[in-house]
Amino acid sequence: MDTVGDLGEAALIQRIRDRVPPAPAWVPVGIGDDAAVVEPQRGTLDVFTTDTLVEGIHFDLAFISPADLGHKTLAVNLSDLAAMGATPRVALLSLVLPATMATRAVDGVVEGMLALADAHNVALVGGNITRSTGPLVLGVTAVGSVRRRRVLTRAAGRPGDELWVSGALGAGAAGLACLQGDPLGPAAEDHELTACVGHYRRPEPRVRIGVLLGRNKAARAAVDLSDGLADGVRQLASASGVGATVDGSAVPIAPGARRWFAAQDRDPLEAALAGGDDYELLVAVPRAHRRRFAAIRKLTRGVPFTRIGELTKTLELVLRTTSGDKQMPSGYEHFKQA
Amino acid sequence: MDTVGDLGEAALIQRIRDRVPPAPAWVPVGIGDDAAVVEPQRGTLDVFTTDTLVEGIHFDLAFISPADLGHKTLAVNLSDLAAMGATPRVALLSLVLPATMATRAVDGVVEGMLALADAHNVALVGGNITRSTGPLVLGVTAVGSVRRRRVLTRAAGRPGDELWVSGALGAGAAGLACLQGDPLGPAAEDHELTACVGHYRRPEPRVRIGVLLGRNKAARAAVDLSDGLADGVRQLASASGVGATVDGSAVPIAPGARRWFAAQDRDPLEAALAGGDDYELLVAVPRAHRRRFAAIRKLTRGVPFTRIGELTKTLELVLRTTSGDKQMPSGYEHFKQA
Repeated sequence: MDTVGDLGEAALIQRIRDRVPPAPAWVPVGIGDDAAVVEPQRGTLDVFTTDTLVEGIHFDLAFISPADLGHKTLAVNLSDLAAMGATPRVALLSLVLPATMATRAVDGVVEGMLALADAHNVALVGGNITRSTGPLVLGVTAVGSVRRRRVLTRAAGRPGDELWVSGALGAGAAGLACLQGDPLGPAAEDHELTACVGHYRRPEPRVRIGVLLGRNKAARAAVDLSDGLADGVRQLASASGVGATVDGSAVPIAPGARRWFAAQDRDPLEAALAGGDDYELLVAVPRAHRRRFAAIRKLTRGVPFTRIGELTKTLELVLRTTSGDKQMPSGYEHFKQA
Repeated sequence: MDTVGDLGEAALIQRIRDRVPPAPAWVPVGIGDDAAVVEPQRGTLDVFTTDTLVEGIHFDLAFISPADLGHKTLAVNLSDLAAMGATPRVALLSLVLPATMATRAVDGVVEGMLALADAHNVALVGGNITRSTGPLVLGVTAVGSVRRRRVLTRAAGRPGDELWVSGALGAGAAGLACLQGDPLGPAAEDHELTACVGHYRRPEPRVRIGVLLGRNKAARAAVDLSDGLADGVRQLASASGVGATVDGSAVPIAPGARRWFAAQDRDPLEAALAGGDDYELLVAVPRAHRRRFAAIRKLTRGVPFTRIGELTKTLELVLRTTSGDKQMPSGYEHFKQA
């Protein structure tokens, strides 16, 4: 079996170039020069984000295939662009590879990433490859475009705005927990839990929804839930200088996740609040834009939106539960998790 | 001593934000949101590059301080932009940190990077931080701007173009080799070798020169010499579909490097051809633009340019030496070096 150590950097780069489709006309210089040259979209601002997945921290190759990993590395970046209301255009890929990694696994990562890029008309225009003395490290920088008054920031929330969340939460965390218990995953006939595992491995970034919300000014502020709902609410409220109240019983939890956590004697709501890997959007909708937002909700192609609370003048973060009001738990914290 | 594991991700991000100067007016959303928002420069194209330095592969903390490392990680990216003729504007930083790393070392990396960013009016607009289960990994994505007909690509060389190189070569490789022999470095009174070590630790990207060459159309094609002169000549010739002849005796070698390699019984020319870490520019100058190029050479603030050869119709890469013509040796290859 060929490894990246056998092949060398130049041959690996050539292998990737062979897989990348021809650059679109708005990319005059793509992969292979000192840097890539891209025509900005007229009348828009550039939006930049970068995210890195590290083996042993964010993923374990026992639970995720190289192709899923390629998909996911790009997806987490597109999710950040979606939370700004930006249309993704360009990606750069940084591969830090153990010399023992199979060349075929690198192919898989690239193919998984390119498939998602193609689905969103994103051009892979460059990157770099180096060896690793340790884990596999995958980095993507994604670039999008958005019109000036269509940006969804975290800081734009106001007291009285309604908080809505896309999709259902907890699926990513349940999928990972299920795989950690059994790397083979759930039985195929357990559709709900299988969906959670799918969600963990191949999250679908809410690109179209983010763009629709920004373009139509249906939402004012947004954040993606890569680090869980509790963290998202905290980030949005803190950046906006407001508080928030979340109705625990309204929080949408994926059916497979609800069942999985209950079977583990864990509170599904707590798990969904803390669990990362959701990549849903939390948005703040001004009351005056309710009808506009209702119209957008009809265009989300089957992705539901659920109202879970509101922003408040008082700076507290309150979780309303059947056993009374509580303080919002803290979210997922990468360094302290260990 | 505080470590990044003690501090946690949120506190680390706050520490970095405290050090970053206020975002300029053309960065409406900087660090702290899901993504950064940047106003493109009117009438220009965007130029993107990304480069990653891995502990144990590209650096050893015994030979380089955190501040130098921060400088260098940004410098290698600015060097790529310079080789396109682009003016740098924006950078994103990806930090993959061992939990045992001292917080003060992270501060040093950030401060070294910000000092170089400030010198080139580059805004640090975002990034991400994660834990590492292995080495320290530092990634930067840099974004620049360039006017459409001012781009310096690798592919624009034509037979008959003169090959010129900025600065002197071999200093980076000699500096590293010297430190590998003795981490304390050369005696302070050995100015030439001390300069090589300085060049290894804090390379100065040729930003101004690249922009001048592109803006005045003094050069046609350019490549940066991060992987050595032999690799640079090969890349430029191959992308342009031409050959090249390089006069070995004309290749400018840093005096400290010449002496260092000779003392090790190594051919200084071979070492300079193969050695990476130079970050000088190799440019192809059309004969018709000679006078324009001569005018630019007066504006390079003490950085010399040396004519080392020319591009040819025949596809061979020839190294002219006192003992006859040879094939150009191959350059530095990251994976195969181990």
